[in-house]
Amino acid sequence: MDVIMSLNCGTSSAKYALYEMKSGTPLCRGVVERVTTGGSFIRHEVPENGEFKKEHECADHTEAIRLIFDTISGKLSADSCAICELKRIKAVGHRVVHGGHRFVKSALVTDDVYDAIVEMIDFGPLHNPANLAGIDACRKLLPSVPQVAVFDTAFFQTLPPKAYLYGCAKEWYDKYGVRKYGFHGSSHLYLSRRASAMLSKHPGRTNLVTLHIGNGISLTAVKNGRAVDHSMGLSPLEGVMMGTRSGDVDPAIIPFICRKERLNAGEVVNTWLNRKSGVFGFTGITDIRDLCARVDQGDESSMTAYELYCYKIKKYLGAYLCVLDYGVDAIVFAGGVGENGWSVRRDILQGFENVGIVLDSKKNRSACGTKAECDISSDDSRIRILVIPTNEEQVLLEDVVAILEDRYDDHTRFSYSFESSSWGTHAQSY
Amino acid sequence: MDVIMSLNCGTSSAKYALYEMKSGTPLCRGVVERVTTGGSFIRHEVPENGEFKKEHECADHTEAIRLIFDTISGKLSADSCAICELKRIKAVGHRVVHGGHRFVKSALVTDDVYDAIVEMIDFGPLHNPANLAGIDACRKLLPSVPQVAVFDTAFFQTLPPKAYLYGCAKEWYDKYGVRKYGFHGSSHLYLSRRASAMLSKHPGRTNLVTLHIGNGISLTAVKNGRAVDHSMGLSPLEGVMMGTRSGDVDPAIIPFICRKERLNAGEVVNTWLNRKSGVFGFTGITDIRDLCARVDQGDESSMTAYELYCYKIKKYLGAYLCVLDYGVDAIVFAGGVGENGWSVRRDILQGFENVGIVLDSKKNRSACGTKAECDISSDDSRIRILVIPTNEEQVLLEDVVAILEDRYDDHTRFSYSFESSSWGTHAQSY
Repeated sequence: MDVIMSLNCGTSSAKYALYEMKSGTPLCRGVVERVTTGGSFIRHEVPENGEFKKEHECADHTEAIRLIFDTISGKLSADSCAICELKRIKAVGHRVVHGGHRFVKSALVTDDVYDAIVEMIDFGPLHNPANLAGIDACRKLLPSVPQVAVFDTAFFQTLPPKAYLYGCAKEWYDKYGVRKYGFHGSSHLYLSRRASAMLSKHPGRTNLVTLHIGNGISLTAVKNGRAVDHSMGLSPLEGVMMGTRSGDVDPAIIPFICRKERLNAGEVVNTWLNRKSGVFGFTGITDIRDLCARVDQGDESSMTAYELYCYKIKKYLGAYLCVLDYGVDAIVFAGGVGENGWSVRRDILQGFENVGIVLDSKKNRSACGTKAECDISSDDSRIRILVIPTNEEQVLLEDVVAILEDRYDDHTRFSYSFESSSWGTHAQSY
Repeated sequence: MDVIMSLNCGTSSAKYALYEMKSGTPLCRGVVERVTTGGSFIRHEVPENGEFKKEHECADHTEAIRLIFDTISGKLSADSCAICELKRIKAVGHRVVHGGHRFVKSALVTDDVYDAIVEMIDFGPLHNPANLAGIDACRKLLPSVPQVAVFDTAFFQTLPPKAYLYGCAKEWYDKYGVRKYGFHGSSHLYLSRRASAMLSKHPGRTNLVTLHIGNGISLTAVKNGRAVDHSMGLSPLEGVMMGTRSGDVDPAIIPFICRKERLNAGEVVNTWLNRKSGVFGFTGITDIRDLCARVDQGDESSMTAYELYCYKIKKYLGAYLCVLDYGVDAIVFAGGVGENGWSVRRDILQGFENVGIVLDSKKNRSACGTKAECDISSDDSRIRILVIPTNEEQVLLEDVVAILEDRYDDHTRFSYSFESSSWGTHAQSY
């Protein structure tokens, strides 16, 4: 049995999963948390075997990945065994956050590709180094196994210049590559293809606005199956208000706060706008379920945060409907909040009835915690409203296998198994 | 004959006009340019007397205003005389850019008001000091004449929290007043009242999107006569791409450029995003007429800049239609480009036919350089499209007179003469 591993290394975590290569059946998944920070542990899950947890200090990502290998191969405990021999792993697919302008599609990690990911650290200073640590560790521990990089940004390389360029000095683009890159690409790609399948339309003739609403939030305008605009930017900070990120602010706020708080621009942006803003910056919490509960209790600052949160998403949705000339087939909700937050969906969509987006409030309410794809629009809605549990792993898995089998192309020319309308039940079972 | 003077002091200029107080008839207008920078001169115009120009060094705004007084009183030349005695000036109305949260309406400049404008320098470091220099000079030269401050921000004090709050840490709002304030307020106020008059609707029942498109550009969503959202922010930098300003960018770009160019945040924002970006940052020119000419010649970077320019306005318009739940009476174009740039209007409005905004291309083309109010929508357009030459001076004049006569209130309760549908021909004659 040949196996594909997926790996998603964050600054202090390493998420992984194993899949049977032919069928795509998931074999196990888990995460090492608190890598490099002290107090690290692994949480590992094998279907039907339940969960396995073990504390083990990991000073760096190499140790975390060694811990993962010991776990999945049963070295640590027979219970945790998912595959007996590591040599069954035929490739590792790494989620890489920033591919800059260099990558329009997933890529086998050659030395050139590796160097290009290093170059992109400039754009993704919070994420790319961790992604590279994962690649380094796997190269060391599984030296003969191909590594594949799957970029969060690749799906957005179809954006036209009017959407990816900023109004700032053009020389910043020419010299430094300052432009919109976009994130959550695998999710938006998956959602757009699944939406086409649900609508029985060819992806190349499907127009959508896809909303990935998790802790990070992004919206994409999809025209004829291709991304034509997107809310995140050079970094994932741009766009709507998120769990801890501010989203869009007047750029003049940065020097204003630098003066007031005697900070530099990096501190204002990294510490404050990325980590201490958004829902957290208003309420001290980040979980939207908790926020909604507090709203129900009438807590004032929670109500303000909730209003802002929905309003800013609503405006982006309004802008993207206009970008698509209002010829939209469906609005797609995904991500933890998008899939389960029925009141958030309701409050975002309020007022769109006049352009033919009509929610069925009963269907909307029942589409919560079900992990099922569903259409929550009213029968007379001109534009469908879909809830689609996203599946970035499936995109990664299929890209990796196709690269191994030398039949891969960029997403505008590549067909995924999940484009079939019959696909679905299997992948969501895990 | 009692006279009102209006004064608009920029960092290196002082624009002025005189009006007959009772009738509002303009008596003269002009500008002193290159104040403080060397090579200053006055350009002065008296209806029917033609233009008068004189070079005269003005090291500061006091000297510039002394030059204005010498000019209007005929001291410099009989040709330039607009009023024989300065004592006819019953009040000076100053355009003040930033009123922060302190001013919901125009105000007589008492010591308290003066101090509050000083406090707001923090928010308007480029503009408020110049506005204050004008107030100082008038207090010195006309010590017994009342000074009135008319704030660019006042019209936007009706914005709801969800529109004026940013997604950044709430403590920045609490401690420092970080919020959206808005600009071009007198223009948007004027446009919204004139639109109501043209539509024969009560202002309190009129929903609009007003677009002020000059060198600076801002859009306002107006619901029942009140501003409910606006594109500019804490500063005039936020929003769409403008003549020299970038408009919205990913905030992460600022520390990125700080690192690359070894600049601090203030330099990146003030020098680059405010002055070397926008249309200028793409093409080296700022005049949209020149840009359009270059587009016609097929110049590539001009075409890119033009596409960006229209696209970013289009998206804000799309967002504001949604903010108003698509229940909009009219879209209003104003400002140098908004009033004369027929191709810009056409390209912004492309694709909005599906929500009932249909341009009459012939009417649109003839509404150019006419200085006349007109409806350029097709007969079957659900939403009207209006071109209204804006008139911020008229708002200032009426605020000043009403304050002198002690019958002034904030704009939600105050009626202007230009709300009458018969008003118009007179004011536009100048």
